Amino acid sequence: MTHLENDIRWMQAAIALGERSKGLTAPSPSVGCIIVNKDNQIIGRGWTQSGGRPHAEAMALSQCQSLKGATVYVTLEPCAHKSNRGPTCSDSLVAALPERVVIACRDPDPRTNGQGISKMVAAGIKVECGLLEKQAAQSMSGFFSRQLKARPYVTLKMATSLDGCIALENGESQWITGERARAHAHLERMRSELIVVGRKTLEFDKPSLNVRLQGLGDRSPKKAVLGHGEIPSGWIGLREPTDIIKTTADHVLIEGGAKTAAAFLKADLVDRILLYRAPILIGKGLHALADIGLTNLSEAHHRWHLKERRTLGNDQLEAYLRI
Amino acid sequence: MTHLENDIRWMQAAIALGERSKGLTAPSPSVGCIIVNKDNQIIGRGWTQSGGRPHAEAMALSQCQSLKGATVYVTLEPCAHKSNRGPTCSDSLVAALPERVVIACRDPDPRTNGQGISKMVAAGIKVECGLLEKQAAQSMSGFFSRQLKARPYVTLKMATSLDGCIALENGESQWITGERARAHAHLERMRSELIVVGRKTLEFDKPSLNVRLQGLGDRSPKKAVLGHGEIPSGWIGLREPTDIIKTTADHVLIEGGAKTAAAFLKADLVDRILLYRAPILIGKGLHALADIGLTNLSEAHHRWHLKERRTLGNDQLEAYLRI
Repeated sequence: MTHLENDIRWMQAAIALGERSKGLTAPSPSVGCIIVNKDNQIIGRGWTQSGGRPHAEAMALSQCQSLKGATVYVTLEPCAHKSNRGPTCSDSLVAALPERVVIACRDPDPRTNGQGISKMVAAGIKVECGLLEKQAAQSMSGFFSRQLKARPYVTLKMATSLDGCIALENGESQWITGERARAHAHLERMRSELIVVGRKTLEFDKPSLNVRLQGLGDRSPKKAVLGHGEIPSGWIGLREPTDIIKTTADHVLIEGGAKTAAAFLKADLVDRILLYRAPILIGKGLHALADIGLTNLSEAHHRWHLKERRTLGNDQLEAYLRI
Repeated sequence: MTHLENDIRWMQAAIALGERSKGLTAPSPSVGCIIVNKDNQIIGRGWTQSGGRPHAEAMALSQCQSLKGATVYVTLEPCAHKSNRGPTCSDSLVAALPERVVIACRDPDPRTNGQGISKMVAAGIKVECGLLEKQAAQSMSGFFSRQLKARPYVTLKMATSLDGCIALENGESQWITGERARAHAHLERMRSELIVVGRKTLEFDKPSLNVRLQGLGDRSPKKAVLGHGEIPSGWIGLREPTDIIKTTADHVLIEGGAKTAAAFLKADLVDRILLYRAPILIGKGLHALADIGLTNLSEAHHRWHLKERRTLGNDQLEAYLRI
């Protein structure tokens, strides 16, 4: 293994640690951190804790005796801005004095942006920034979206037949996809702070929208309904798609139906599509999408890029990102 | 490489040779044959020629001086039934006397079924049958379908957006998929003897349905239209899906539209779905499938199996086989 391959391996592990907190840390980013000693053995692991504190670096540092000769892998630039919830991570790292700090993403927050790096460099630590930057940014997609676009990161989930139906004509939709695909969709709920459905889905399906995975019930996100009418107790009402900006969510999951999906697409508010497809044909059924205002085919192209795909039981999952 | 791996490699090559003739040999099977000498070097290669003769074995044998110590790989049991178009392949092989004959599929034709093998075994040739049987049978799918189900092998082609649309609401469908996917679809035309479209597709799209690939223009199949009304010159008229049984085609390609696709599915006449999907969303458009008579979701399951998938430019191709 080359040095670069070794660095990549640890950074991937740090990203995976950060992913654990996705959905729990808004408005803070879900950072991951791994510290290895001079023999390339792990001596500390951390990820942003629920509510945003402790930070990943603080958690990892608390596990180490000494950072002499150590390398710190962290998915986001250590913070440089004072908080009344503890010292800054860049100060803590300067005090601990590892040999190297490898960072995936520079912090876009203007209170840190570059200053965390400068402090550490000034203290004589070797600092590298940019390793697996895109992948790490995707793992903190909500934070980056809020910082760079001033809105949450929005995922549209669709579970369809091969011919693009989400239900029979009578509304029967249980089940299109199998158990594994549905379990995966529950993990996606866990990684969101808010799930949105349309008025019709709310009334017809009466969805509980909770995370039905053992041990993860407390990770169920908030629920919102798009459209006019009565807001059930415990739900948030959205008059229009852009109302998600006003919520506290960094990651929003749109779960349907066809009109709600179309409304978010029409507003160009969808960053990612999670398409679960079962190997079935429905024919005359309810289609995944209502009118998105497309007037010619060329407009439809060059908007989505297949990022990832996997098999979940008999079903296929594809993740498309907005180009 | 083990002996088995070696055998598999040659049989795969023989299957690939047979595929060359797919669409050209009905009602004969498109067999492939490779002969290797005792040093495992190719000394003969053959595939069923246009119209069914010469057979693959005859073509391969014609290239060899001696079969002493040789192994013959052939995708279908060599024929044992007399024809006025030449000697039987099993007789030719007995005369040539290779050391071994490895066969993928026993010939389901009752005139040969096992008798080709018996003749060769009686002559002292080592005969093995069953290697890559499924894969080879798929390469001769039309022949096997005619023999075992008394009907052609039917492929339904669909080219859709991610949400299952085949056109905008105004009928615009040029283009959903990109150049590579369309070129692949032309290869599939080449491997068929008959393409079927519906009355509306005929009138709206005026499709030429030919093979528009350089050097392969003469491989364009026959064209049929499903439904009542005038039959254009050079076209075959089908009143109902089962009328394909009466044609001479062994491989039928259904190219749409939604009603024609649904008619064949409803009649349970589709063996394979080729689903080309572009990474686009259409929303309010024409959907891939009309009513297929489904009344509940459980009926839809366990009918289709994802056999193969590949990336074609920006598009995805999936092949589903009927379970």
